[in-house]
Amino acid sequence: MKKILFILSAALLALGMSVQAQAQTLKWIDASTLNIIGQAEPTGKPYDRINTQEHKMPENTIAYCGFSTGLAVVFSTDSHVISARWTTSQSMPGVNMSAITQKGLDLYIRDGEEWVYAGVARPTITAEKRDKHEYTIVNNGPDGKKECLLYLPIWDRVESLEIGVEEGSAIAAMENPFRHKIVVHGSSITHGASSSRSGMTYPALMERRTGLYMINLGYSGMSTLQEEFAHYLAQVEDADAFVFDTFSNPSAEVIEERFDKFVDIIREKHPTTPLIFTQTIRRDTRNYNLKTEDFESRKQAMAEKKVRERMQRDENIYFLDSEGWIGYDHLGTADGTHPTDLGFMRMVEHMEPQIVNILKKYGIK
Amino acid sequence: MKKILFILSAALLALGMSVQAQAQTLKWIDASTLNIIGQAEPTGKPYDRINTQEHKMPENTIAYCGFSTGLAVVFSTDSHVISARWTTSQSMPGVNMSAITQKGLDLYIRDGEEWVYAGVARPTITAEKRDKHEYTIVNNGPDGKKECLLYLPIWDRVESLEIGVEEGSAIAAMENPFRHKIVVHGSSITHGASSSRSGMTYPALMERRTGLYMINLGYSGMSTLQEEFAHYLAQVEDADAFVFDTFSNPSAEVIEERFDKFVDIIREKHPTTPLIFTQTIRRDTRNYNLKTEDFESRKQAMAEKKVRERMQRDENIYFLDSEGWIGYDHLGTADGTHPTDLGFMRMVEHMEPQIVNILKKYGIK
Repeated sequence: MKKILFILSAALLALGMSVQAQAQTLKWIDASTLNIIGQAEPTGKPYDRINTQEHKMPENTIAYCGFSTGLAVVFSTDSHVISARWTTSQSMPGVNMSAITQKGLDLYIRDGEEWVYAGVARPTITAEKRDKHEYTIVNNGPDGKKECLLYLPIWDRVESLEIGVEEGSAIAAMENPFRHKIVVHGSSITHGASSSRSGMTYPALMERRTGLYMINLGYSGMSTLQEEFAHYLAQVEDADAFVFDTFSNPSAEVIEERFDKFVDIIREKHPTTPLIFTQTIRRDTRNYNLKTEDFESRKQAMAEKKVRERMQRDENIYFLDSEGWIGYDHLGTADGTHPTDLGFMRMVEHMEPQIVNILKKYGIK
Repeated sequence: MKKILFILSAALLALGMSVQAQAQTLKWIDASTLNIIGQAEPTGKPYDRINTQEHKMPENTIAYCGFSTGLAVVFSTDSHVISARWTTSQSMPGVNMSAITQKGLDLYIRDGEEWVYAGVARPTITAEKRDKHEYTIVNNGPDGKKECLLYLPIWDRVESLEIGVEEGSAIAAMENPFRHKIVVHGSSITHGASSSRSGMTYPALMERRTGLYMINLGYSGMSTLQEEFAHYLAQVEDADAFVFDTFSNPSAEVIEERFDKFVDIIREKHPTTPLIFTQTIRRDTRNYNLKTEDFESRKQAMAEKKVRERMQRDENIYFLDSEGWIGYDHLGTADGTHPTDLGFMRMVEHMEPQIVNILKKYGIK
């Protein structure tokens, strides 16, 4: 029996599941009573990115508006244990992402200027059940106050979330540790589809590295310069800048048709706010597909043409060429399209200094 | 209806699924009639790593012996389309890996000295069914002969595999394009648990980069210097070198107890073959867990001690310190333990030149 238990434990461990003995008695705090950051505006629901009752959004993006992409709970605690129990939908993992990315949590603890990875909360995934999860993220932690940044799932709804800490320990909401407000809108690349955990999307990486507050409005496969998105972004009054990855999903024809109107709508409310358009990355799906090569190169050419035309009459619009951003070895994506952590790190190393330089001109630093 | 179809297609695309129109009529070739590389020795079954009928393996590793980890089909074709249909087990994805890694295929096409990523074959994963898959990897490909290296799933059995090419096109087995035989044995890190696709494990990366033939005998969670593994490795007569990641899974006590016997068994059959022991990487699960910090640092100290002791009396044993191999930003893993493509690329950039230098001394280049 002991042997069977050992084999079972080893097999579970190997599968990335958890066999945790939990001696401590924990107290559980509803995370919505702490500080949730990452919503462009308060939505009235703690874990929804956008309130679709209040804002008309493209019909095919309604489900995504309820995702917790880019949201994080910020709190401090002196507990030696930090656990989470949370509920999501029953959705199955996508084939190009792990369940940790899709439904898991990702914790960082502040160490001076740096946010240090502290642990993920692994979701429970079986053929029958994928909605209720519990995991001990930090165990046997050091003494003293820990400032915590806990990123929520990028690809699912969070219906409820509780943070578990030791009985007798302190836990309190923290102020948003990030400065300004940069709204990032785009495709699955912004959404972070093939990142390994929710803190590894490029907006989250840049947020921790620069200290600038990044809002993730990535909409996988759905970011095609729709007017509804422009209207939504326009009314985010306190946005200090916008970064766009809006040329990954639409065709050259759609870009040509929609780009100017998209900018017009934002410019009505934000006449001089910096709008930073990034070129879509060169996809490795082009490598051996002549039609994709043609489609993607026409799309990139149109994107550059439209942004550069607009720059002629608007000095607060920027175009960042993505040449070489994910490297030249064709190893930066999971599937030819979606950057992995390797691709994202390479992207950030290229794009971050350029974005930081632009923002500095506006006193955003 | 059209609208619903559009939304459905977009949703499937966004989830990484495929809506492929396939006009061509394909002919299907049983991949086992082509050349399958990556078995340390022929197993009599095309997609099993090790024949457990013939070799006594640790009881808890029997299932892993049937996995196709590290195996690849090599063939050439002038077809413009390369498809695959294959069957695996019904297993669910592990939480720290994607279904592409676990059950998918990963294709590279030779371009001069380089193996260029050409596409993945995405498996079909639903709550009900996860064993039958079909995917078009290359479509609208260029004219001419293409030399193909198709890595098989790292975390599942392959029961059958057919390659689909255009009617009238040629397809033929290729010789193994890699030189010598380096057997890599170790843990989930060698196995490649959180790589994004099966060609992104560190042995597969090094194989394509160096041209050296790498056999992947990674056994997630199960690589604890067992005698059965030593006996198996010992009888791989034509192994030119062994690389070990055998200090990731066992405790300091197990390393102390088993290390010398493990080496003794291999040395009986391979008296002077280079044995390259790599230190286990510094895990980020240590960051905020004092017990893990203690466990891991004792394990690393014992590993180094035992290998260095042995090096005193065996000049063909090597120890590679892993200090800094996955970087110092704590961003190289999916979960604190398992390197992502980012972690693997960083590892390879450190370990590959060291391994290549050692092997050169033995004329292995």
